Amino acid sequence: MRIMEASQFDGKRSVESGTREQQEAVRAILADVRKRKDEALREYTERFDRVRLETFRVSEAEFAEANEQVSPQVKAALQEAAENIRDYHSRQVRQSWFVTKESGTMLGQLIRPLQRAGLYVPGGTAAYPSSVLMNAIPAKIAGVPEVVITTPPGADGKVNPAILVAAQIAGVTEVYKVGGAQAIAALTYGTEQIKAVDKIVGPGNIFVALAKREVFGLVSIDMVAGPSEIAVLADDTANARYVAADLLSQAEHDPMSAAILVTPSRKLAEQVALEVARQLAELPRQSIAAAAIRDYGAILLVEDLDEGFAVINRIAPEHLEIMIAEPFSQLGKVQNAGAIFLGPYSSEPVGDYFAGTNHVIPTNGTARFSSPLSVDDFIKKSSVVSYSKSDLMKNGPKIVTLAEQEGLAGHGRAITERLRDFDREEQE
Amino acid sequence: MRIMEASQFDGKRSVESGTREQQEAVRAILADVRKRKDEALREYTERFDRVRLETFRVSEAEFAEANEQVSPQVKAALQEAAENIRDYHSRQVRQSWFVTKESGTMLGQLIRPLQRAGLYVPGGTAAYPSSVLMNAIPAKIAGVPEVVITTPPGADGKVNPAILVAAQIAGVTEVYKVGGAQAIAALTYGTEQIKAVDKIVGPGNIFVALAKREVFGLVSIDMVAGPSEIAVLADDTANARYVAADLLSQAEHDPMSAAILVTPSRKLAEQVALEVARQLAELPRQSIAAAAIRDYGAILLVEDLDEGFAVINRIAPEHLEIMIAEPFSQLGKVQNAGAIFLGPYSSEPVGDYFAGTNHVIPTNGTARFSSPLSVDDFIKKSSVVSYSKSDLMKNGPKIVTLAEQEGLAGHGRAITERLRDFDREEQE
Repeated sequence: MRIMEASQFDGKRSVESGTREQQEAVRAILADVRKRKDEALREYTERFDRVRLETFRVSEAEFAEANEQVSPQVKAALQEAAENIRDYHSRQVRQSWFVTKESGTMLGQLIRPLQRAGLYVPGGTAAYPSSVLMNAIPAKIAGVPEVVITTPPGADGKVNPAILVAAQIAGVTEVYKVGGAQAIAALTYGTEQIKAVDKIVGPGNIFVALAKREVFGLVSIDMVAGPSEIAVLADDTANARYVAADLLSQAEHDPMSAAILVTPSRKLAEQVALEVARQLAELPRQSIAAAAIRDYGAILLVEDLDEGFAVINRIAPEHLEIMIAEPFSQLGKVQNAGAIFLGPYSSEPVGDYFAGTNHVIPTNGTARFSSPLSVDDFIKKSSVVSYSKSDLMKNGPKIVTLAEQEGLAGHGRAITERLRDFDREEQE
Repeated sequence: MRIMEASQFDGKRSVESGTREQQEAVRAILADVRKRKDEALREYTERFDRVRLETFRVSEAEFAEANEQVSPQVKAALQEAAENIRDYHSRQVRQSWFVTKESGTMLGQLIRPLQRAGLYVPGGTAAYPSSVLMNAIPAKIAGVPEVVITTPPGADGKVNPAILVAAQIAGVTEVYKVGGAQAIAALTYGTEQIKAVDKIVGPGNIFVALAKREVFGLVSIDMVAGPSEIAVLADDTANARYVAADLLSQAEHDPMSAAILVTPSRKLAEQVALEVARQLAELPRQSIAAAAIRDYGAILLVEDLDEGFAVINRIAPEHLEIMIAEPFSQLGKVQNAGAIFLGPYSSEPVGDYFAGTNHVIPTNGTARFSSPLSVDDFIKKSSVVSYSKSDLMKNGPKIVTLAEQEGLAGHGRAITERLRDFDREEQE
């Protein structure tokens, strides 16, 4: 793993935005599903997933079968993880609120769940039941009455059993065997079998990402996630074996995953470099992790922790581990990071699977302006105004002044129509 | 104004998505400004705004001059409106929070303002100082240290004075004379004179909207706003003159604005139709409002208020006025509406200018899943995990089970690297 001065580091990764051909293929699929609905879904599923389906919805029998295929250990761990995710996310729930004024005016904000949310779940080798929990539970906690999943079927027409078990644990019973851009189209426009949703969340391949980008505005979409990242800020007190293992835990995700250690300690830097090499040799996903470490891994030397925090804030990593003597007293220095892990035992996979925080986190520097998936992503707010007669009498003329200044006389007249009545009443 | 059964109504408006030529023009401008920075801005400003500028930032002298050009009445009204907007939005501010567990684990959410936000303000005839307040104040209340404005200059190289006065009242001192897609490019990529921002908000023409859509993901953007809308749900108790005036206040915005009355009362329907015709004849922006009423206006008859609420929830209007006998007891029936105005004195322009709620509100049915602009739009959240040794000892094996089930052995090893140490310690 290369060791360099932090000032030499340019951590830019290009964001995959798709080729023109891919964009056009996605647009064609969206238009086709919009028009021909389920029949188009059937054709694309046959073409891309190599199976012809008449009914897309997963049956109760299929859920029952999945339940038997997943080990009790995995089920118990998923259940306990789900409890923790529910507990953490239930603390994010906000209430509608009102302010009443002596004048009789009342202002407020009405907070409501979305009505229907769709979760895209990738299929094939990358079937992650933990992602089902992380995407579905915040929606359920927000109070979304209808949470549905679409996921591509295997060539046998089945869905990965762990996905179905996780869906059940999360309380999702509506699961459709459709994948790719065609699934995004179905969730956006609706088909005979699949009702349109208000919001689409969940990761996917480049076709899914492009499709979500296309339908943005017609439905709400979550962020487009890039390859995973971890940055570790550590000093002399850190355990090099732990740092190396945590860096590798993200590097194994994707050849474009980034794994960066920021430290003022040259000694730690050298130990971690050795440990990464040693642990890498034993890793099942060695070739992926090795490519990530080679291309997007770095150990950055800084003068002191303050420079370290500045480097971290510039990177704005998805995951940040702080392994220093007194992490709590330094937390306030973090400006930009999606999820922050403090101390030697807060290994990043603890957050991926179990602690209760969400593992859907902004990547590629977008933690500058976006946030981990949360209950907030499944609510909408309405402002509420109940203006009193006395306030309108008092403030009406000022509103007319502002409307006329902007050349919007009709706005002013809506007010004067009332003010005239008040004058008349007074004269009576 | 046409009166019809609600079931006959199809309120669909097409969203302007731009022609291919427009999209390509925007992409070319974005790429050019990214590469040539200020020099490109100068050329586009000369081409589109017909003025050559060396320095883009508005000077203190220009602020002072603007201050003298705006009437004291307008200034006072803007100041009072700003106070109300600050008061309402300060109630949206959230605190970071933590949960501590007996096991020693601590989980939380760190809530932080964005570092720099950019507000696009349209120029020319549609200069709306109220929009400056509505976009800038939530950012300031969120604690964003740098809030900047870009706005196209007139051919004289000046900015509309009311815009500058509103900027000062909102606490924005960094204003740049750049408009169009080139302004969005400058805010996204940064130039010599204009630093890049984390988020871009504010309305604009089709080029601005297309540019925002293009840079979505590189920076955060607000929703793409469509033409204004109002829906009024009213019964026999409503004043037909008020209803008509309020409908027209939105119709005058744009020939594509929608103005819809939903009522179970045929009598009110007929009175409002007459009143709209009468008031329309006296409106300065008559031709715009008449086109909107003709093409997108409708009076929808329903059986009862419950059907009325169902119609409203299907429309999901930007603005909803409820003028019925007991509006408060019915508020819970509103599922989808951006801003809700209750009772006879809550005329929609009260919210546009003065009450304190935000007037940047989702249009075209997107209130189903999005919300008025708020302090939430200018913050980001980081999750925080401090996991205790005892929790890792207890739960580590479950985390390893889940990681291995997903084929991510490296995630598991980050945990076992610690578990092994715990075992060793115990044996010692």
